[in-house]
Amino acid sequence: MSGDLYGIGLGPGDPELMTLKAARLIGAAQAVAYPALPGVDSFARQIAAAHLPDGVKEIRLDVPMTREREPAQAAYDRGAGALAELLAKGTDVLFLCEGDPLFYGSFMYVAARLSDRFGIQVVPGVSSVQAATSVLRRPLVARNDVLTVLPGPLEDAALEARIAGGEAVAILKVGRHMPRLRALIARLGLLDHAWYVARATLADQQAMPLVDAPEEAPYFSMILVIKGDDPWL
Amino acid sequence: MSGDLYGIGLGPGDPELMTLKAARLIGAAQAVAYPALPGVDSFARQIAAAHLPDGVKEIRLDVPMTREREPAQAAYDRGAGALAELLAKGTDVLFLCEGDPLFYGSFMYVAARLSDRFGIQVVPGVSSVQAATSVLRRPLVARNDVLTVLPGPLEDAALEARIAGGEAVAILKVGRHMPRLRALIARLGLLDHAWYVARATLADQQAMPLVDAPEEAPYFSMILVIKGDDPWL
Repeated sequence: MSGDLYGIGLGPGDPELMTLKAARLIGAAQAVAYPALPGVDSFARQIAAAHLPDGVKEIRLDVPMTREREPAQAAYDRGAGALAELLAKGTDVLFLCEGDPLFYGSFMYVAARLSDRFGIQVVPGVSSVQAATSVLRRPLVARNDVLTVLPGPLEDAALEARIAGGEAVAILKVGRHMPRLRALIARLGLLDHAWYVARATLADQQAMPLVDAPEEAPYFSMILVIKGDDPWL
Repeated sequence: MSGDLYGIGLGPGDPELMTLKAARLIGAAQAVAYPALPGVDSFARQIAAAHLPDGVKEIRLDVPMTREREPAQAAYDRGAGALAELLAKGTDVLFLCEGDPLFYGSFMYVAARLSDRFGIQVVPGVSSVQAATSVLRRPLVARNDVLTVLPGPLEDAALEARIAGGEAVAILKVGRHMPRLRALIARLGLLDHAWYVARATLADQQAMPLVDAPEEAPYFSMILVIKGDDPWL
């Protein structure tokens, strides 16, 4: 009997925004895996740390964030190989995921390499979009509103067309695209409807109107465009 | 000192998909409020039931689901009045929300009536979109994919334009719109990329290709269109 690979959503950062199910499974885990930038503590591991049982086997995947996809792909290949050994022995492995496993997460690259041989289970988590709106305390979508989620690296034309098409827009992975994204939103006349949130639900979170946001944004930051005028409808 | 109104996200239905923070706050609550369809058990209360402390004050808002908005608006007016009395006495009130409070939730209508006088706090929850994809065990969005969330009651032309604009589409509130939505997706040639999920994460959940879905869909059901071919990228 092989083990199953679990994608465990940990939520946006505040360890208390983990689900009861994630906490229970992590607390009983034999093996956990998590991605990390080389040389840096794993954010996913930090979120889960208080629940990791003594003696749990930990597999860290060092995944470089480069423009070329090959280095990350090679890291996922190696990581999947290490996980496959454990799974083949019958050990369940919990892959710890910031946010939700199926929402722009690295779990998908690992599962893609293992799903032909092992069972895949997914525990959903609170996404960064939900976290950011909770910090802003602004309604995101109600009634028949349309929500569009856009990665910041997309080109201006692609962003513009999609920002026009809905009542609420969340732009993720802002990072170095901040100046371009802010200029784009200004051109569209939406600066008064735009907010910036970084590291939502963590102690050093930032939340402010986009006009006041710093020029240097971290990768885990978000711009929200909410076109309605009334913060509570 | 007045109390604060809390919007507490409970997640999609499985009580274990509540966050640790929601469970802690509910377990210490003096007063909770929740919406319900007249004559029916409140779904939000059911999710939270195991955590409600003895003697907690409960305020049930009977909110009729009618095409006209006035009956629901009147119900929110009455409910907000009852909550205001408690808040003015210094009691915090937790408003229990299916999914996430700011994602198509009734909390917003209550908060809109109270935010000028009382503090508003929000605890985010796992949304139905995350829940549905976890049940399907299919990647939703990765890399620079665009996600669009659409309410099913929108007209065909509005839906069509937005379904074309992204790699993944979640259509919420399917209900009686099922036949029309399925016909629309078939016309767009996307039937092979469409799934149906109802009551995700509950014991009686349903998840299947849209072609196999029943003609009668509940309000809490969803169609997912995921254009990528490989279930794991």
